Amino acid sequence: MTGSPVALDAHGIDGGPELAVEGARLAAADGIGVRLFGPESLAPACAEADGVELEPVEEWIGNDADPVAAVRSAPGSSIVRAAAEVAEGRASALVSAGSTGATMTAALFALKRIKGVHRPALAAQVPLPAPDGASSALRPGAAGGAGSLLFLDVGANTEVRPQHLIQFAFLGSAFSRAVLGVERPRVALLSVGEEQKKGTPEVAEAHAALAAQDSIVFIGNLEGRDLLTGAADVLVTDGFTGNVALKTLEGTARAVAGAVRDAARSGPLAAAGGLMLRPALGGLRRQLDPNSVGGAVLLGLRGVAVVAHGSSTPEGIANAARLADRAVAERAIERTAESLRASGATREGLRDDPAPTGSR
Amino acid sequence: MTGSPVALDAHGIDGGPELAVEGARLAAADGIGVRLFGPESLAPACAEADGVELEPVEEWIGNDADPVAAVRSAPGSSIVRAAAEVAEGRASALVSAGSTGATMTAALFALKRIKGVHRPALAAQVPLPAPDGASSALRPGAAGGAGSLLFLDVGANTEVRPQHLIQFAFLGSAFSRAVLGVERPRVALLSVGEEQKKGTPEVAEAHAALAAQDSIVFIGNLEGRDLLTGAADVLVTDGFTGNVALKTLEGTARAVAGAVRDAARSGPLAAAGGLMLRPALGGLRRQLDPNSVGGAVLLGLRGVAVVAHGSSTPEGIANAARLADRAVAERAIERTAESLRASGATREGLRDDPAPTGSR
Repeated sequence: MTGSPVALDAHGIDGGPELAVEGARLAAADGIGVRLFGPESLAPACAEADGVELEPVEEWIGNDADPVAAVRSAPGSSIVRAAAEVAEGRASALVSAGSTGATMTAALFALKRIKGVHRPALAAQVPLPAPDGASSALRPGAAGGAGSLLFLDVGANTEVRPQHLIQFAFLGSAFSRAVLGVERPRVALLSVGEEQKKGTPEVAEAHAALAAQDSIVFIGNLEGRDLLTGAADVLVTDGFTGNVALKTLEGTARAVAGAVRDAARSGPLAAAGGLMLRPALGGLRRQLDPNSVGGAVLLGLRGVAVVAHGSSTPEGIANAARLADRAVAERAIERTAESLRASGATREGLRDDPAPTGSR
Repeated sequence: MTGSPVALDAHGIDGGPELAVEGARLAAADGIGVRLFGPESLAPACAEADGVELEPVEEWIGNDADPVAAVRSAPGSSIVRAAAEVAEGRASALVSAGSTGATMTAALFALKRIKGVHRPALAAQVPLPAPDGASSALRPGAAGGAGSLLFLDVGANTEVRPQHLIQFAFLGSAFSRAVLGVERPRVALLSVGEEQKKGTPEVAEAHAALAAQDSIVFIGNLEGRDLLTGAADVLVTDGFTGNVALKTLEGTARAVAGAVRDAARSGPLAAAGGLMLRPALGGLRRQLDPNSVGGAVLLGLRGVAVVAHGSSTPEGIANAARLADRAVAERAIERTAESLRASGATREGLRDDPAPTGSR
């Protein structure tokens, strides 16, 4: 835990801002102070929660708004206020369960990029089903870090050049080591086959460059079917493919789980069987729950920013705050910057430097 | 069923060429003649199977070979021989469970593109879990065609321009109508959000063009989480994203099903429950089995070519042959060509016309 509080945007959670107070209370119980940017109506609940302060903000940016235009035109919105709190040193890290695009944009504008970073990337932690039925959900601080995949970019950059993919590999490796406790993270590129030349020209070029360096452990290409096998600790792709793959994974897990539930309603025998299997399946549901990992992290900024799942539960919010707090305590930003500098994979090697595209 | 036989490449099936004979026998039992291109060692089994003829071929192209180079340099290989059989009118359609890249390349070289088609696309049928537990696996000829998604491109073109995505939409719609029996196929684009401007510039431009036409039913963008919800009949994307998403879906379904199986071994109570639930879950497994749909179809060629799953069972091979036979019987090629001509979405509207990239 760190001294200064986490700035939490309470607007934009699917279940309503009250869930943010509940989540903040859980985090505060672990000694993580939370400064909450949300509606005045939360004041009574916040007053009762030790370690939770409310900054009343009525204005917020929804999912439908254009992120860049909205962030520029709404300096008084909850996400912009929360990001400024971090930039100005009054909070240690930014946490939001609101619009991903607005969070990324506000964080980028307020916190700026690490020197040499061309494009920040959004890195999701994908919980892996444990082969032995034990919970493998990654907790910040879990020793070894086995049981989750750090998957990036999942939506910050819809188009990338090879140099961006290479940077994502270094950013992901540094975060995995610094915050997730993986000593030698195995880094892979997502493609359509194992061979170096498979995939887009960008992927093939990034593959060749990563294979030629030895600062991080590059294990080659993986395919979509390998996401949940634990074959890599860090998996790198562009923000369009990553977003589609992550949502495909979530949608498929939900559909199969739903079909299993339906099967357990298809007759009396099946229903009895389902009932007897339920305790064991509950563990699986918890494992695959995105709330178990606390959210996605924006990598490459000079500050910590965590995007919680839009459908977060209080536990999900609390886990996002815990992850943010741990990133601060572990000096994730400084260590990432050092690692990038040592690798030489900074934007000095890039030909041109247009503005980041943000989430589209 | 049609008069002339289906040409089946028996090499390259994970389980060995003997499975192809079994599959051919099942198809032949439905009156679909099969000419099998495989090793001489299959002769005794083929001699016993009515409607199954063997063309002995010992040379074949593996998954690791560069498809274009291999097809050019191995005119005597099973896939090239089988494709030539179709091109020269001695077989009605091509079916292969071997290398997807080699099949696409051999089919493209031998069968050629439909006039106006810029790039052929590989279209997979994704079986959807039925909400009521009933089997929804798409059988060729199933009335209504509900219960599966035609998903393209899943690997023929790693990079596309907007005009290619637009053509894929028309190709998919025409095939869905002609062969899968969907009267008014709902066509969507895969992207990272619903709004027209979301996604890559190519997706946004294709969205605008599809929204402006009225020859096919365009319902807008869908996201990765919508693949199994039945929200669309045809889903269009580039071959890189489509390949990653399809394999992510298959891998996730396998991982979740495996975790359910593990849960049912986690104790005596769970084991008893799993046993009682097993009959109901068997239906689900059959539904999600890629073998239930018979394989992916190459759209945009002047002949029918079906790529069966590499891990095909005999039933999977037979379903691939049934799908191919039905496409021939329903005049899928002619009707697709007519539909494309009527739509105006042909390559005459494209600025340049480089060679297709093939599978990479």
